[in-house]
Amino acid sequence: MGQEKRKEKMIYLDNAATTKPYQSAVEILTNYNLAEFYNPSSVYLPAFLIKQQIKQARNTLSQLLHCKETELTFTSGATEGNNFFLQGIVTGRESEEYIFSLGEHSSTYEVANLLKQKGSIVHFVSLKANGQVNVEELLSFLNQNTRLVSVMHVNNETGAINDIKNIVAKVKQINPKTLFHCDGVQAFGKIEVNVKDLGVDSYIISAHKIHAPKGVGAIFIKSGVFVKPLILGGGQEENRRSGTENVGGILAMVHSAEIMNKNLTDHFKKVIELNKRFVQNMSNLEGIEWNRVGEEYSPYILSMSVRGIKGEILVHSLENEVLISTGSSCSSNQKHSGNRVLQAMGFKKAQIEGNIRISFSEQTTIEEIDEASKIIGNAITKLKQKMGVK
Amino acid sequence: MGQEKRKEKMIYLDNAATTKPYQSAVEILTNYNLAEFYNPSSVYLPAFLIKQQIKQARNTLSQLLHCKETELTFTSGATEGNNFFLQGIVTGRESEEYIFSLGEHSSTYEVANLLKQKGSIVHFVSLKANGQVNVEELLSFLNQNTRLVSVMHVNNETGAINDIKNIVAKVKQINPKTLFHCDGVQAFGKIEVNVKDLGVDSYIISAHKIHAPKGVGAIFIKSGVFVKPLILGGGQEENRRSGTENVGGILAMVHSAEIMNKNLTDHFKKVIELNKRFVQNMSNLEGIEWNRVGEEYSPYILSMSVRGIKGEILVHSLENEVLISTGSSCSSNQKHSGNRVLQAMGFKKAQIEGNIRISFSEQTTIEEIDEASKIIGNAITKLKQKMGVK
Repeated sequence: MGQEKRKEKMIYLDNAATTKPYQSAVEILTNYNLAEFYNPSSVYLPAFLIKQQIKQARNTLSQLLHCKETELTFTSGATEGNNFFLQGIVTGRESEEYIFSLGEHSSTYEVANLLKQKGSIVHFVSLKANGQVNVEELLSFLNQNTRLVSVMHVNNETGAINDIKNIVAKVKQINPKTLFHCDGVQAFGKIEVNVKDLGVDSYIISAHKIHAPKGVGAIFIKSGVFVKPLILGGGQEENRRSGTENVGGILAMVHSAEIMNKNLTDHFKKVIELNKRFVQNMSNLEGIEWNRVGEEYSPYILSMSVRGIKGEILVHSLENEVLISTGSSCSSNQKHSGNRVLQAMGFKKAQIEGNIRISFSEQTTIEEIDEASKIIGNAITKLKQKMGVK
Repeated sequence: MGQEKRKEKMIYLDNAATTKPYQSAVEILTNYNLAEFYNPSSVYLPAFLIKQQIKQARNTLSQLLHCKETELTFTSGATEGNNFFLQGIVTGRESEEYIFSLGEHSSTYEVANLLKQKGSIVHFVSLKANGQVNVEELLSFLNQNTRLVSVMHVNNETGAINDIKNIVAKVKQINPKTLFHCDGVQAFGKIEVNVKDLGVDSYIISAHKIHAPKGVGAIFIKSGVFVKPLILGGGQEENRRSGTENVGGILAMVHSAEIMNKNLTDHFKKVIELNKRFVQNMSNLEGIEWNRVGEEYSPYILSMSVRGIKGEILVHSLENEVLISTGSSCSSNQKHSGNRVLQAMGFKKAQIEGNIRISFSEQTTIEEIDEASKIIGNAITKLKQKMGVK
């Protein structure tokens, strides 16, 4: 990376990897750290007031998710949330079976692999060409021993939205005792989320995907569902998650969640425009495939493949003028051959290798989109010439 | 708490519960959040530079702890650290035995209880009157089946320092395969810590006890010791702890750790003076017991009991002019009858009930100590009169 330079102006289109925290959220964090840094478990008034602030934040978040305060647990992030629920509902009965969609985030997928390793029966469900989970296949695995079904709300690589409400209803009809876990990281704050209406038993969110700092998240667990704590200790979070609360992170997250949800419709409309504009701007280029079929996508995520050009090479050729991803950044640490999600959708090798992900924020401007599509378009044209691709 | 008021000037003497983050640490956090918020797993240069910053922070921390970079894992805090190691080294062999000091933090103690519940042989070692672990008793439990010994470095309620190096040597002499876990939360940054010299297999630290934000910590795990990850997923932290890194928290923590360690000797001298001054100021009061025998204490923590007055009542009677604790704040969520640590030291009921903890920072001033001891002294005198205690 030696000769690459950091550009003065970079267009950030990798909001599915992480978002820029709102200034106001950072101010809340700073204020807590410098003026109200107390441990909420301490016994004097200023600490009690911090505890009240956490309670208020929990109340606000419960309204946004449409659940009870007591059904929410703050965590260190979505990865912990997925691990907490998925490891915590294992009873150890040998007959227990699990069903996971192949679109799940690595923090879910790796727990699934662990359960399989330990000898449990684990079914992986393929995705349809549009990126949604194959519901028929899912239901075919379901039986009276199924402990859990896990299907994410919005896929982080393709933006495909699963019809969770419908899938939950079908699952519960066959086995009402089966728990339904849903990773809502790319959905919450961006599309309508009502956990009661969805009917899920658990739902997880992450702060840093909704313009709040990293290191914090939350999980909804339906009343009556018992989950063994992953992290034991001082009994914080009603004994579900011990450890001194990341107070500043919690307050900042809920603040950002409120902004996102209050403006959800406006943001959504704006992001649809950004998304359409980008696709339109690229329409004169040949060899581009938009990895979408039909309408069930979050406009925040756009997956495309360029014929004959590897996504990695394209991303690097942008010389940091436009920041985008090849697939999910979360899996870039792992030595995957190819891409699990796109493979599960039945993509061919060339399409997978040529894949890039563009992800928007409501803070992205039309001017940035125009500039970015120009830069990406030029890069593609140059690479095609260089490589002799038509 | 209705009629209590929040005072304009509060003297904070609860630094064992949490510390006020350094302004410079908060600035690092803010800068990351607003200017460099990238996901370190993303594939473009600005993200790579963030990854480099984490690497640099890990290098700095490894020098402070005297270990290799590869032996450090960043966590969401000490509670996660304790859980990660203690749950992660369980092999499931029935013969496995564990030894825990009764002084351990709740995040260690509750894992010990879990292991016991699951059927393992778990030995709890009592404390001596000075708050140190009873080494003879500890060694008497040790045998060829002992998988792990866990003894904290500095006790969070009494400040008692365990001679970890000596205990490790004795343990390893009897069973070199026994793992030695050490919770260094109240030690690191305050007394010299050299994990190689101590000979421990693991050592945990917490950011918010060293003037950095909550929600972040680190664990040293000696090369060659295999620990199952608690949190699976994207493979961050060399697969030992998945989840998008709390970058700002990590950078802020290591920054504060550097300040604390660079100035360790000066801070230590200053805090000894604060501690002595407080004790001296209170010397004219009757019925006060300093819960210390001998010299092996961190000056940062001072435990005292007032005869005939309950600690809780005393703390509340200070009307938030001085902020102190009754025992450990971390355990205040739990329905403990009494105090496990002081009980393990053989304290009598009255001494336990009358216990308060004063904990200092190098930022505490002599003036604050004088003012605080006056306020606490007056409160004690008033309560004694009110209650007819002589």
